[in-house]
Amino acid sequence: MKALGLDVLVEAGAGLASRILDADYEAAGARIVGPEEAKAADVVLKVRRPTTAEISTYKPGAIVIATMDPYGNEAAIAEMAKAGLTAFAMELMPRITRAQSMDILSSQANLAGYQAVIDAAYEFDRAMPMMMTAAGTVPAAKVFVMGAGVAGLQAIATARRLGAAVSATDVRPAAKEQVASLGAKFIAVEDDEFKAAETAGGYAKEMSKEYQAKQAALVADHIAKQDIVITTALIPGRPAPRLVTRQMLSAMKTGSVAVDLAVERGGNIEGSEAGKVVEVEGVKVIGYLNVPGRIAASASALYAKNLFTFLETMVDKETKSVSVNAEDELVKATMLTHGGSVVHPNFGGAAVHEGEGK
Amino acid sequence: MKALGLDVLVEAGAGLASRILDADYEAAGARIVGPEEAKAADVVLKVRRPTTAEISTYKPGAIVIATMDPYGNEAAIAEMAKAGLTAFAMELMPRITRAQSMDILSSQANLAGYQAVIDAAYEFDRAMPMMMTAAGTVPAAKVFVMGAGVAGLQAIATARRLGAAVSATDVRPAAKEQVASLGAKFIAVEDDEFKAAETAGGYAKEMSKEYQAKQAALVADHIAKQDIVITTALIPGRPAPRLVTRQMLSAMKTGSVAVDLAVERGGNIEGSEAGKVVEVEGVKVIGYLNVPGRIAASASALYAKNLFTFLETMVDKETKSVSVNAEDELVKATMLTHGGSVVHPNFGGAAVHEGEGK
Repeated sequence: MKALGLDVLVEAGAGLASRILDADYEAAGARIVGPEEAKAADVVLKVRRPTTAEISTYKPGAIVIATMDPYGNEAAIAEMAKAGLTAFAMELMPRITRAQSMDILSSQANLAGYQAVIDAAYEFDRAMPMMMTAAGTVPAAKVFVMGAGVAGLQAIATARRLGAAVSATDVRPAAKEQVASLGAKFIAVEDDEFKAAETAGGYAKEMSKEYQAKQAALVADHIAKQDIVITTALIPGRPAPRLVTRQMLSAMKTGSVAVDLAVERGGNIEGSEAGKVVEVEGVKVIGYLNVPGRIAASASALYAKNLFTFLETMVDKETKSVSVNAEDELVKATMLTHGGSVVHPNFGGAAVHEGEGK
Repeated sequence: MKALGLDVLVEAGAGLASRILDADYEAAGARIVGPEEAKAADVVLKVRRPTTAEISTYKPGAIVIATMDPYGNEAAIAEMAKAGLTAFAMELMPRITRAQSMDILSSQANLAGYQAVIDAAYEFDRAMPMMMTAAGTVPAAKVFVMGAGVAGLQAIATARRLGAAVSATDVRPAAKEQVASLGAKFIAVEDDEFKAAETAGGYAKEMSKEYQAKQAALVADHIAKQDIVITTALIPGRPAPRLVTRQMLSAMKTGSVAVDLAVERGGNIEGSEAGKVVEVEGVKVIGYLNVPGRIAASASALYAKNLFTFLETMVDKETKSVSVNAEDELVKATMLTHGGSVVHPNFGGAAVHEGEGK
């Protein structure tokens, strides 16, 4: 950011959890300040949505860019509007080529998929790869990944790296080829509904009850033979779909492991508990919260790059000033509040008027 | 064992930690019994050396095969001799081709090497593989493996699988080629002493003070650039050599990880604590005990095969009886006690007389 000509303030101790010392920020040209000096900032970059206390320290008109978790938090959004903040929700970034480098959901999901396999391997009481030794052969672990989006694909890749026998499922037909390209077996009921299922947004749509029942039967049969199941299915703005029931878990071998990456949104696995590893029907069910944060240094590096790239689109390199172009499709997609009002249509706001850029 | 014509008794609940139910043993033809029925057994197969209480339940003349941990436990060996047991220490199995399938040190070290990397990845706050994403590149973790025996080689292979940049060191010149064949970089002071260092037993010998100092300087310099260090250096019958000092740890980046697989024998890493993950000079030092037991199902399967193969050499397939051939080099190497006396020369016994087989 210094290269863009901006002055950078960093709150004291901000980087500790990601192994970045205040001195490192200073070496990079930033000034270390206390939280009260946020008042001076034209732009505030954060990981999470600011609290009420934090909002009161920001100056009206300041730009706040963060993971806003907006769905279901309309009151907090209204608070930011009232404080006169121009707030951007990074998770609403559109999935278009230009915004790829700003896509926090992809960058963090990628890490979550990796860490899900590490967590599973850690809890699993056998080795993952096939080991052919003088004392006999340890069979490769059977890993089943449910939901082959960014997290699922990285989970497949990581489990394959570790030598597991990997299969995966997804309701989007496009996933079939991606799963196969990573060397995993694709498991799905491939009927007409399945073939019609991919939506423009790149997310899965919710399938019919009939399809879900057929898929559940196929999956139940498959899960009973697995050592490790990793679920990654999310539907934007809705609770996570229930993919694995207690009954399916009870059909798995004792000591099997299941990882629920959707636990924050209600969970894909029956019995999973947020923030815990619990035993359900003899299966260890892992439900850690904020899984990318478990590899904080990597998560932080990628998130910072996402924020930086987005901020860069608002900086005028000549005048070294920051301005918001309300016509930019990235701004349209992510701006929650501006000029005292909630402006995002998904959260009760009318779209910003033409030419209203700050 | 049933196939050898033997009757098999299994203590109730014996396999629980390795996910084997009593019913599974019964299905395989074994009879489930209480601990008191050990009295009836001609042969007792165990994981660990029997306790005094257990010894009292065995019949005189019974063969006991286990991991005896004999060095420093001469009193316990004498106790087994006094009880009239014929006790075999599996860890004394000679490293010859014929005994490869009975080599518990190799089979368990292999698993320990794998698990050391999983434990390190779990504690590490970054991803192991290089990840080239739209939001920038996560660099590959740098992993340094000290001691390239069976455990070290599996650690190298597993870290490579996960995409880490791996280097390794060993005082045995033969290790150089093995390390390179796994795609890792070999780090060692390669002077004349190094070239002369390999001993017949396949283990490292203790090096001179001068060599150790030169190697320590090279290693200190190298460690400072690593993210993860895994130490696996053991010298039979002696305390583990100190390879990593506090000073070396303090030169590593904050948040780095070190795994001490030699912690049970005093540790290769200064500050490592048996059974714990501790922070030493900003580095997470992992010192779990019985690391193969952390993947109990695999460890148990391989150990059982080791025991079985050894026992098989004592079974007469015609008469379906068990007899010990004192002339067998496997028996000579592993038999601790027989006929009321300690017989192993390393533990104060004279070698067994010719023709004294039971």
